[in-house]
Amino acid sequence: MKASNIREHLRKFTRLPHLAGTKQNLVYAEQIREEWLSFGLDSVELVPYDVLLSYPNKSQPNYISIVDQLGNEVFNTSLAEPVPDGYEGVADIIPPYSAFSPKGQPEGELVYVNYGRTEDFVQLKREMGINVTGKIVIVRYGKIFRGNKVKNAMLAGAKGIIMFSDPADYSAVGVQPYPDGWNLPGGGAQRGNVLNLNGAGDPLTPGYPAKEYTYRSNLEDGVGLPKIPVHPIGYHDAMHLLKNMGGRLPPNNWKGALNVSYSIGPGFTDTFRTQKVRMNIHTNNQVTRIYNVIGRIRGAQEPGWRPRRTIIFASWDAEEFGLLGSTEWAEDNAKLLQERAVAYINADSAIEGVCVCLCACVWLVFRYMHTHIASPEEGEEGVSLYDSWHKRDNWTSDRDAPRISKLGSGSDFEAYFIRLGIAAGRARYTKDRKTERYSSYPVYHSVYETFELVERFYDPTFRRLQAVAQVRGGLIFRLADSQLLPLDANEYAGSLRRYVLSIAERAEKHPEEMKMYRVTFDALFSAEENFTIAARDFHVRLQNLNRVRMVNDQLMYLERAFIDPLGLPGRPFYRHLIFAPSSHNKYAGESFPGIYDALFDIESSANQQQAWQEVKRQISIAAFTVHAAAMTLTQPA
Amino acid sequence: MKASNIREHLRKFTRLPHLAGTKQNLVYAEQIREEWLSFGLDSVELVPYDVLLSYPNKSQPNYISIVDQLGNEVFNTSLAEPVPDGYEGVADIIPPYSAFSPKGQPEGELVYVNYGRTEDFVQLKREMGINVTGKIVIVRYGKIFRGNKVKNAMLAGAKGIIMFSDPADYSAVGVQPYPDGWNLPGGGAQRGNVLNLNGAGDPLTPGYPAKEYTYRSNLEDGVGLPKIPVHPIGYHDAMHLLKNMGGRLPPNNWKGALNVSYSIGPGFTDTFRTQKVRMNIHTNNQVTRIYNVIGRIRGAQEPGWRPRRTIIFASWDAEEFGLLGSTEWAEDNAKLLQERAVAYINADSAIEGVCVCLCACVWLVFRYMHTHIASPEEGEEGVSLYDSWHKRDNWTSDRDAPRISKLGSGSDFEAYFIRLGIAAGRARYTKDRKTERYSSYPVYHSVYETFELVERFYDPTFRRLQAVAQVRGGLIFRLADSQLLPLDANEYAGSLRRYVLSIAERAEKHPEEMKMYRVTFDALFSAEENFTIAARDFHVRLQNLNRVRMVNDQLMYLERAFIDPLGLPGRPFYRHLIFAPSSHNKYAGESFPGIYDALFDIESSANQQQAWQEVKRQISIAAFTVHAAAMTLTQPA
Repeated sequence: MKASNIREHLRKFTRLPHLAGTKQNLVYAEQIREEWLSFGLDSVELVPYDVLLSYPNKSQPNYISIVDQLGNEVFNTSLAEPVPDGYEGVADIIPPYSAFSPKGQPEGELVYVNYGRTEDFVQLKREMGINVTGKIVIVRYGKIFRGNKVKNAMLAGAKGIIMFSDPADYSAVGVQPYPDGWNLPGGGAQRGNVLNLNGAGDPLTPGYPAKEYTYRSNLEDGVGLPKIPVHPIGYHDAMHLLKNMGGRLPPNNWKGALNVSYSIGPGFTDTFRTQKVRMNIHTNNQVTRIYNVIGRIRGAQEPGWRPRRTIIFASWDAEEFGLLGSTEWAEDNAKLLQERAVAYINADSAIEGVCVCLCACVWLVFRYMHTHIASPEEGEEGVSLYDSWHKRDNWTSDRDAPRISKLGSGSDFEAYFIRLGIAAGRARYTKDRKTERYSSYPVYHSVYETFELVERFYDPTFRRLQAVAQVRGGLIFRLADSQLLPLDANEYAGSLRRYVLSIAERAEKHPEEMKMYRVTFDALFSAEENFTIAARDFHVRLQNLNRVRMVNDQLMYLERAFIDPLGLPGRPFYRHLIFAPSSHNKYAGESFPGIYDALFDIESSANQQQAWQEVKRQISIAAFTVHAAAMTLTQPA
Repeated sequence: MKASNIREHLRKFTRLPHLAGTKQNLVYAEQIREEWLSFGLDSVELVPYDVLLSYPNKSQPNYISIVDQLGNEVFNTSLAEPVPDGYEGVADIIPPYSAFSPKGQPEGELVYVNYGRTEDFVQLKREMGINVTGKIVIVRYGKIFRGNKVKNAMLAGAKGIIMFSDPADYSAVGVQPYPDGWNLPGGGAQRGNVLNLNGAGDPLTPGYPAKEYTYRSNLEDGVGLPKIPVHPIGYHDAMHLLKNMGGRLPPNNWKGALNVSYSIGPGFTDTFRTQKVRMNIHTNNQVTRIYNVIGRIRGAQEPGWRPRRTIIFASWDAEEFGLLGSTEWAEDNAKLLQERAVAYINADSAIEGVCVCLCACVWLVFRYMHTHIASPEEGEEGVSLYDSWHKRDNWTSDRDAPRISKLGSGSDFEAYFIRLGIAAGRARYTKDRKTERYSSYPVYHSVYETFELVERFYDPTFRRLQAVAQVRGGLIFRLADSQLLPLDANEYAGSLRRYVLSIAERAEKHPEEMKMYRVTFDALFSAEENFTIAARDFHVRLQNLNRVRMVNDQLMYLERAFIDPLGLPGRPFYRHLIFAPSSHNKYAGESFPGIYDALFDIESSANQQQAWQEVKRQISIAAFTVHAAAMTLTQPA
């Protein structure tokens, strides 16, 4: 692997806009096919699906206005971001928009609701007594997935929602805005879809691949489509909307870093009380053809080197529109994947910071990999990536080892891991969790997310990207070629132990209710202990066994054993009982998500009796599932 | 296998009543364990679950009255069936009752609704203009599962339902009532549960095993529990309720064989118009411990003969209460079963008639078995069971071979086949489909279903039961021990072809609507052709392959490929897209049940546009599933 090749590839595929469903994206897909064939893959094909996408209307741009009492627009937000140097001549740069927003021109008073989280709306209603029915809410980006903000606004009765990037959440200290640094400039805004798919893939064909003959539901019955207009803006525009807002002053933790009061509203101060805000949204939904690129190296003992197991490479289309390409292909191939897939390695977003090569997947054996890869950092010559990682992100609270994170959602592993239960992992460079306060990375989903951003700031030598590629490639090599699968059920057991402790601790913040409703985690602790013993015994037995196929099957299916075919409550496509996003934030992977959500709902539920019954039900389901998973290890085939 | 042993076992286990959840049933379970151990099984254990059962109240019997205008009971139905000779001293004979009926004493006018089928209620409402809201309906047993009748009565607004056995449906021509023959006497009545579980198992723990720690829903939220009182009676008692009924005369096909007019009602003729009917139901629901007996012969190459594959024997508890024992164990072991189970052979109800040894499972290779088993019939010495079967039940409409039926529901294979997608089969002696008009067998679920019934009428030499045992045992032997699994995907393909033709024909009874709503079966025909080619090629390739394990996996998982994790509409535990009962009759297995139900609903739907959209959606799902199943055969691992 050469850093110079990585540079060249990144340059080639970032030169032109290539939104899913556009001609340019198909051109790139065809280029990927040609390249993969030239690399020697056995076969490469384009696999099409017809999915619902969403584009701004070219002749009627989206924007937000302040209107006076006569309806005149006295201020309009910008129609596009200032284009960075070197891209002035590029056609088809899509302006910031919220994909899948319905059309509409709602007009009304603004209410500021912090990050738009469930708890922000609860606080707004309970503590401030403010009802947003018929209002337009404005929230800052960050903390949770934007789709959750939109859902919360809808549930609260708002008629529109505006999302802005506050410098408090999109600037690192001491860093200049792009192009002089990697912070978000005031003219930049965050694009992105605002669906609440919960793993459904194409909104019109939930559960089934969006093939030509597939039945499509009406738009009204589509999964997760927002019912109110949504639009994103940058902080220069946000200043204009916020600066004259009236109503009560915000709590301290609702204040961002702009020079305004962050007053809650509703509406403007007396001076401007006749002014209102109007959203002008003309975005179109459209069933559009997308193309995944699927390449294969067949596994077999044949002339020349081949891996033991087949490797499939996939270039997913339409990730940004709700993980559509990857989910449709998972639906299309679910039966094969369930029976045969050993693991899934995700390769989205290789660099989002300069701190550590973070890996997520609790029981993939990472250690071996990293000790054979050199740290790409200057001044760390001779140091392994493993040691570099260990030094920067020690898992101190639990043990002396580099931290391995849980998988959340928000990228293409979702359907493979959370719906189908295939062991999944990812590896990438990220920011320093402990010191960096901004959400994701500052220029995320803005026009400033360019090749030059990487070349100038994140990885000038392209050696960090090379290290990521080595980790990913190494994992795939071992998964495909080692006789015994590099999966360790003991690691899973250790993680389960921590998750049980953590979720029980969360519940025990309510000791009286737990007593009153007779809630106990005993069954879950007992299930977890049983699993730990089963895992230990399994790996002991494994030393003396030569029936590798049987043992590998048990390893392969262990992740599957955590799948509940009924799914999580109200979320039929989120079926993994150990890892899934909370209902309140798609970005964060929670352990025991069923129990987590039930405990979350305790806070806002009017019926405590019922809410605690749900906690008990979720504990019982989790305990059963962990027992059943243990059984797959203890029972010989 | 000896006929005399079969006789002895049947005698032993039919001597005393042993309702699920009673002490005597546990005694029998323990006896089974001891016997299986003495037969040489490697291990045998009792596996308990705590499920909802239902028993009559011993101190307050259930009955139905005719009451006069003062509320006096002028007629009461019998509290028990006349006990057959030889059983006079037996304690704990449970009287006829509808298990899981709620308590209640509804009083009202009777309305007679034929078999209580969906189409009967539609005809009653549309053609006769009779509304049963607030009435008590009386229906005859037969044609469909009793639980469906109860559901239909509830949906129509009735406040109670009485079910009776009409001689037209429970007598064979020229046969005497028991004990002089095998027809149902007038004092006999059919017990049975009236749940609408749709595969859920224990009503309080749907989807999960009813273990000690499992969360149980409230009774009100239980799955499939009827909300109106239900009670079964024999035809002597039915005469009293029917003879004075007034209102309009019935259509001809609503008339049974009793000497009454079968008038519809509501209520009695003028002479008796002040009389009403009152149901007195005091049945109790109760969470009760049941015990499956699970025995194993481990599969392996070890000293002494062992099958290649593990054999598990199961004696299921609480079948009559809704397949509870088998479903809870399936839920408990779902993950193992999904990954490892090759096939399931059901062994309920070995003899229900004297015609043929009927086998159900479309792609199990039966032929081999039957040619090695002798026909047990007198006058057929030297004839094989296969030829005897062929002669009596030729599959004439399709081809010259003995008929193999579809699996419906109503016995313990349900969760294994329809929920988990494990290839399943059953074998038993049945009545002659072509000439016998009665439902099931006449004394079904009455007190007259005795050891003597078999010994005197159905199988005096016990050689038919021996033949059934040989078929079942032979199937298990081959499934467990043959190197290549005895499953033939070509047979599946042939069946699919017939099912597609048949369901398309059903839809084409509405040619105009199909045109108007653009409904086409093209995608399904194309999927079926694709499957046929995939099956043919698979079996051709299989000849030249020595990787038996891989091929067997493909065979094992083919049935699984027809499982849709989303289940059929509104029935999350009926997940097999090729075989499942219709929503309108649990007893009959339909092919393409999703399309079948959608077409059924066309008849009664007020919104034709929507109803046909559902047909299209179901066709698309079926086509996808058949394509995906084909893919599991074509794609090498």
